[in-house]
Amino acid sequence: MVPAVSADCSSTSFTPLVVLELASDTKQEAIAWLLGRIRDPQQNGGTGLLVEQLGLGDGGSEKENPNLFLVGAKWQRLLSGAEEVGLFKEFSDGSMRGFTCANKHNFKHFEGDGDSFISMAECQYIIKHELDTLRAKDETHVPGHPQVKLYPGKSIIRRLLSKGVLIQVFPLHEKEELKRLSYAWYQKVKLSFQPLDDIRRYYGEGQALYFGFLEYFTFALVPMALIGVPYYLFDWENYDKYVVFAVFNLVWCTVILELWKRFSTSLAYSWGTLSRKKAFEEPRPGFHGVLGFNPVTGREEPLYSNTKRQLCIYLVSLPFVLLCLYLSLYVMMIYFLMEGWVLSVHDEEPTFWTGVLLFIPSIIYAVVIEIMNLVYRYAAEFLTGWENHRLESSYQNQLVLKVLVFNFFNCFASLFYIAFAMQDMALLRQSLATLLITSQILNQVMEAFLPYWLQRRRNKKMMRKVQKRKAVAEAELPLAEQVRLEADMSTYLGTFDDYLELFLLFGYVSLFSCVYPLAAVLVVLNNITEVYSDAFKMCRVFKRPFSEPAANIGVWQLAFEAMSVIAVVTNCSLIGMSPQVKAYFSESETQLILWTVAIEHVLLAFKFILSFIIPDVPKHIQIKLSRLEFESLEALKKKKMLEASELTKGIQ
Amino acid sequence: MVPAVSADCSSTSFTPLVVLELASDTKQEAIAWLLGRIRDPQQNGGTGLLVEQLGLGDGGSEKENPNLFLVGAKWQRLLSGAEEVGLFKEFSDGSMRGFTCANKHNFKHFEGDGDSFISMAECQYIIKHELDTLRAKDETHVPGHPQVKLYPGKSIIRRLLSKGVLIQVFPLHEKEELKRLSYAWYQKVKLSFQPLDDIRRYYGEGQALYFGFLEYFTFALVPMALIGVPYYLFDWENYDKYVVFAVFNLVWCTVILELWKRFSTSLAYSWGTLSRKKAFEEPRPGFHGVLGFNPVTGREEPLYSNTKRQLCIYLVSLPFVLLCLYLSLYVMMIYFLMEGWVLSVHDEEPTFWTGVLLFIPSIIYAVVIEIMNLVYRYAAEFLTGWENHRLESSYQNQLVLKVLVFNFFNCFASLFYIAFAMQDMALLRQSLATLLITSQILNQVMEAFLPYWLQRRRNKKMMRKVQKRKAVAEAELPLAEQVRLEADMSTYLGTFDDYLELFLLFGYVSLFSCVYPLAAVLVVLNNITEVYSDAFKMCRVFKRPFSEPAANIGVWQLAFEAMSVIAVVTNCSLIGMSPQVKAYFSESETQLILWTVAIEHVLLAFKFILSFIIPDVPKHIQIKLSRLEFESLEALKKKKMLEASELTKGIQ
Repeated sequence: MVPAVSADCSSTSFTPLVVLELASDTKQEAIAWLLGRIRDPQQNGGTGLLVEQLGLGDGGSEKENPNLFLVGAKWQRLLSGAEEVGLFKEFSDGSMRGFTCANKHNFKHFEGDGDSFISMAECQYIIKHELDTLRAKDETHVPGHPQVKLYPGKSIIRRLLSKGVLIQVFPLHEKEELKRLSYAWYQKVKLSFQPLDDIRRYYGEGQALYFGFLEYFTFALVPMALIGVPYYLFDWENYDKYVVFAVFNLVWCTVILELWKRFSTSLAYSWGTLSRKKAFEEPRPGFHGVLGFNPVTGREEPLYSNTKRQLCIYLVSLPFVLLCLYLSLYVMMIYFLMEGWVLSVHDEEPTFWTGVLLFIPSIIYAVVIEIMNLVYRYAAEFLTGWENHRLESSYQNQLVLKVLVFNFFNCFASLFYIAFAMQDMALLRQSLATLLITSQILNQVMEAFLPYWLQRRRNKKMMRKVQKRKAVAEAELPLAEQVRLEADMSTYLGTFDDYLELFLLFGYVSLFSCVYPLAAVLVVLNNITEVYSDAFKMCRVFKRPFSEPAANIGVWQLAFEAMSVIAVVTNCSLIGMSPQVKAYFSESETQLILWTVAIEHVLLAFKFILSFIIPDVPKHIQIKLSRLEFESLEALKKKKMLEASELTKGIQ
Repeated sequence: MVPAVSADCSSTSFTPLVVLELASDTKQEAIAWLLGRIRDPQQNGGTGLLVEQLGLGDGGSEKENPNLFLVGAKWQRLLSGAEEVGLFKEFSDGSMRGFTCANKHNFKHFEGDGDSFISMAECQYIIKHELDTLRAKDETHVPGHPQVKLYPGKSIIRRLLSKGVLIQVFPLHEKEELKRLSYAWYQKVKLSFQPLDDIRRYYGEGQALYFGFLEYFTFALVPMALIGVPYYLFDWENYDKYVVFAVFNLVWCTVILELWKRFSTSLAYSWGTLSRKKAFEEPRPGFHGVLGFNPVTGREEPLYSNTKRQLCIYLVSLPFVLLCLYLSLYVMMIYFLMEGWVLSVHDEEPTFWTGVLLFIPSIIYAVVIEIMNLVYRYAAEFLTGWENHRLESSYQNQLVLKVLVFNFFNCFASLFYIAFAMQDMALLRQSLATLLITSQILNQVMEAFLPYWLQRRRNKKMMRKVQKRKAVAEAELPLAEQVRLEADMSTYLGTFDDYLELFLLFGYVSLFSCVYPLAAVLVVLNNITEVYSDAFKMCRVFKRPFSEPAANIGVWQLAFEAMSVIAVVTNCSLIGMSPQVKAYFSESETQLILWTVAIEHVLLAFKFILSFIIPDVPKHIQIKLSRLEFESLEALKKKKMLEASELTKGIQ
């Protein structure tokens, strides 16, 4: 895609792709040195990219940071970069192969110079990769900034970022493309699937997989919702009829997760991320330790003992998490005590004020939960940072694990208590409905409308400022202003919170929906609005994120599977506790429990067998993958045979 | 290793490694054609190996098959073959790398011509691989045998084997090496570990891993045995004290299996099979179907619909297995009925004859079980063959699964019934002891001594025949006689039965040993004799097997893990049923069961978390693996950089 900035970007001689924002107090010699390093050809250890300072716009004020730089590249450079990062593209025979410049004309959609072959998101990803791998040559410091030390072989950009000299690096939006995408995505009123391929082209595979999963999850819930409605309409007061529904739940959870694995593999294959090899992962910016030699790369870098980290995790983090869980349980018990006390007060002499009092415990509990979640999140981030993980991926995994466990407890502990300790199905149903509806409303407000409103205000301010000087139509903001506007937009923090929300919704549906069949309907409605609000905030509220190559939803697949295992346990217990089943085993409670446990074990075993039997990779993709492998083996063999025969010829 | 056949092999000009035995009625033109194809250099589509007919020995009789052929190769050919099969060898820096001829001098232990670099077992594996990949060029038939059709690209040797023209292909023993190995392995009286590296060098990785596992399993049982003895001595009649023992069992099972994974990874790494890529797998000889084009290789070969196979499995094999399981249960119930009837007869008027009658049901049941196992094994082999799997590996997996499930049922169903339906711990203990001791004795006799005795007779006959004509010392059997002797030896059918036996022993120990603490002691004793008898039969009874490269124990790891999950369930139930625990929950049985189930679930969850936490690959090997990967990435990058700079130079 040739980005459509054109016309008004008279100040740049190339298509700007990525913006570097340096701190306003950066020394001129440091800037000159950095730009020189970026512009240097690759043979000299530079990146061979193009970079230019952004003009101050139409009479910029003094408050504005002048140190904004636009980075771009020639098409040739981008193509060789695509080979370096190992981009997979569709080959002329329909299979996906690693792109190589030597072989470029054999790839589908490669026309002319290939300037429409790589999408802009991919170009930005390549530029980010090239900038990240710009390394210091010898042990020195950044000119003019003696406090920013450089070590040979370490990434310069990461160093500058962690020292605060470089404020941010972000890719630019494409106005035209974004307009087209947002129209196809959420402005069209017509019922249709999301344009996943377009989303992937604009935001990368990580984002597209999230939206794909959101859509898949919504569709997977439709059968449940359809079954739930008649249950709700005709059996509203008949909680004991939920056995059939619970059984359906069980099978459904297992099957949809297995099928999602296959679906996501298909997506990842067609996007070329399935067989793409991960590049060697650099240490995360915050990682510190004693300087030593990395046993893998042989480079000098900070080392940190693994044993020490394990001790941190098991002696500090784990006890802390357990303590928090205990605290959360304690707060819950206080809530139930308060609830009971308020009820008894209201029952004694019901007045208007005791009626109001009835709501107080729930409100306090909800507020306390929110506060606890917030505080815990900060604590978890601090602790995980303190554990000093070498790689960003293991940092993320540890953080997800911590946050996940606590959120699960906070959201579901009270429901578990009501269901299994109090065995009060009416209350369970009521709590579930309250939790679902309030969290849904809160989410939409906090996640989309609030940020949008803030962004809109910022937008208008900028427009007013520009329009004060020039009379331009709203759509045609000059490049300099546009870049400054985007630099001020909020940064998208990744899909973590979005997945967490889906995870909790999945929990509500799979764990307890048999007592409140309308849950699935509510979640479907929520998901539909979620698609729109998420799409909206991606397009209008946030800075464009760098695209993240991803082959699957990673640790979340595991989390959802764990939830579906827990769902088997809760649903079996709910079935065992249903009046219907209890009536059947009226003589002996022991028999009832033993049967329930036996059936639960069989179901769990069946679930595991099912996940073994259903292959994760669909047949037609398996064939394509093994064909590729076979061809490369054959090519290798042929090459060796040729070498051998040349050798014998040489001898003769 | 230079094989030490030397001196008396005056008839061959090279070191014979592998023997081909053709049917005695093979036409001379077919033999000439086959030998020609084998001798042809690789450029002409042959294998470039050396092959020679074996002489008839010293005045061989007419009954002997003259069509025995010795296959060998030059060292150069073997080295290039080692590269073709992708052998991993130790590099000069201590890491394991794929061997390449171009780089040969950088490998450790490569000296001179490299004639001691590849072990004889590896040479034989290479020759087998080369023979297997000898392919027909065009659609024709074997000269002189119009019924043996050949299709272009298909393996000739496999075709000849399946048509019965080729009777067998087997590698030769090395007398000297075998003597040394057997001394170090089982003739030395001194207590020591098995010489796993020597076993691996002589028999290949698959065998060595089995013996490694056997040894590891034995050592892992020692703590249990040590705890078991005092239990047995002091608490013999106190079945209710087994709670501590059961808890120990649970933890132990999980931990040893996880640690084995790490240990076997270390072994596989040091043997070079861990990162070795699997070659493209050919269809198994028995596979049939309609001729078509393979979607992966593009070659013409039989195709068989996957749906059809799945239907066979789920509509025929699965119901058949379930029927067999039902039958096995039915037989068990009859046994218990008989047992009860006999007991009542004996209790009414105890005479000598009713005393004898007491043993009858057990004997009948044992015999019936053996017969059922045998019949079922044949049926399973037939069914799995009929399912028509394309690959040998999936055939093996399906067969293992079928046999495993049935054997598990046959062996453990009666124990489960006694433990949980009859809740008779004294009887359980007695049955366990009987089963363990009888199966142990039977095994040793059937597996080692009987075949040994048969082989010894055969050996003596051959010696007598030779000595009739010449007066040679026993050790110096001439090559021709030696080859004929080995051709007549039994064929080793793989590690299947050995692993199955270990699996059942593991079941006895992990499932029920808390009621019979001596089980671990018995299994340790059994395993020690098993090491010796298995070693003995490998060295003296069987033909040498081709070495099987293996990186782990494959499907058996899964089977053992499944067993350890079942062990959690049975041990928790046994604890829940113990009088001690029952006394604690004397008021409410429901409470007892709920607590038992809760604890069981927690243990299962803990087990799964543990298997996630403990990394399968030890840290130091992980580092070596990622260093290799990093180096190859760097090399690739450097190569591309060079190409790019050459390109720019060219343009300038």
